[in-house]
Amino acid sequence: MARRIAILGGTGPEGSGLANRLARAGEHIVIGSRDAARAEITAQQLRTDIGPSASIDALENAAAVAAAEIVILTVPFFGQAVLLKQLKTDWKPGTVVIDTTVPLAAAVGGSPSRMIGVWQGSAAEAAAELLPAGVSIAAAFHNLGAELLTGDHPIDSDVLVCSDNDHAKQVAMELAGKIPGVRAINGGKLENARIVESLTALLIGLNIRYKVHAAGVRFTGLPLKM
Amino acid sequence: MARRIAILGGTGPEGSGLANRLARAGEHIVIGSRDAARAEITAQQLRTDIGPSASIDALENAAAVAAAEIVILTVPFFGQAVLLKQLKTDWKPGTVVIDTTVPLAAAVGGSPSRMIGVWQGSAAEAAAELLPAGVSIAAAFHNLGAELLTGDHPIDSDVLVCSDNDHAKQVAMELAGKIPGVRAINGGKLENARIVESLTALLIGLNIRYKVHAAGVRFTGLPLKM
Repeated sequence: MARRIAILGGTGPEGSGLANRLARAGEHIVIGSRDAARAEITAQQLRTDIGPSASIDALENAAAVAAAEIVILTVPFFGQAVLLKQLKTDWKPGTVVIDTTVPLAAAVGGSPSRMIGVWQGSAAEAAAELLPAGVSIAAAFHNLGAELLTGDHPIDSDVLVCSDNDHAKQVAMELAGKIPGVRAINGGKLENARIVESLTALLIGLNIRYKVHAAGVRFTGLPLKM
Repeated sequence: MARRIAILGGTGPEGSGLANRLARAGEHIVIGSRDAARAEITAQQLRTDIGPSASIDALENAAAVAAAEIVILTVPFFGQAVLLKQLKTDWKPGTVVIDTTVPLAAAVGGSPSRMIGVWQGSAAEAAAELLPAGVSIAAAFHNLGAELLTGDHPIDSDVLVCSDNDHAKQVAMELAGKIPGVRAINGGKLENARIVESLTALLIGLNIRYKVHAAGVRFTGLPLKM
């Protein structure tokens, strides 16, 4: 059976955007949500948008985790730890988690161009603490705003992937590289997620100051093709 | 008389690189150093490299500050506060300070791809605390590595400029825009320097992982010409 990718928080703009792009790339997607009925509405909408080739199911979060080999976390930061504690016994060994969470100050009523200080250093490292042994984690996709993820146009932005686990890093880089235009960049250890997460706050600030919706980032001087 | 730009720490690779680029753009440069004789050696080398058009003088730091309208700080983070305290009575009202400092963990024996936590949030905000009223500050140039600043080739990187002062921001953006290839980007308030500074640690990590010397960064999706 082909691998399945669960997207927790998949009914939100970032999660459904990633579902859209990865389903178009031929991946089998499971939209995860607290509410399976809401997940099904998003899945149905995506199937309508993409057409009959799309493989997109919908399940409640815990069932989505149990059904998938790869789990992408796209829930807001204030819900991340609570969700991971709830899922504690649902993980299968070998699952790869890809965390996209950005701890924006908006989570505590602040500005979306400011960050919350996270004790562990980053949302990704906070998530890593709440996963059982045998489940690996990479941080990726933070810098692709929801607007960029709609439709099927090429995206003019790189994706930095940070992980302490070679397999998780490779899986996340492979998925990022399947989105047209996106270049996957090795962002080093998981601890570097703190910089990559904060880059999102900077991009949100650029969107506000330049009155655009889809600022992105490219790295130059690297021996990688565009 | 034309304005003069003092570059404190101008004998180091970042400072002499900026001196090289700004002198080539027609600016009048003063290399500042603890040791006026060392500053003169750097100035002489730059004049030889650039040719007779270059206007580059050399002075001890305090004299350089007194002689200039714009002061660029390129000293290592561990020397920044000490230097600014020494210069306390040397500033003229109206001076624009441009801080390029990155608080890399290397300053305390750590890795150059990690950052030190600075109480004020960033090296630039720490510097701002040590400047008298009437002296304004912008943060810029962090992401242009010394290697990129040599010679006169176009640089494939943007420069984010952060400041709470419109005049200082405008001066720093104007100077950044004088370097061939560089695009000046409005990085918002001075507090955002914490993100821009940390981006340098990320670029250093990319240089290490991809075995290059001149990783840079471009922002996409903005209504600005390349």
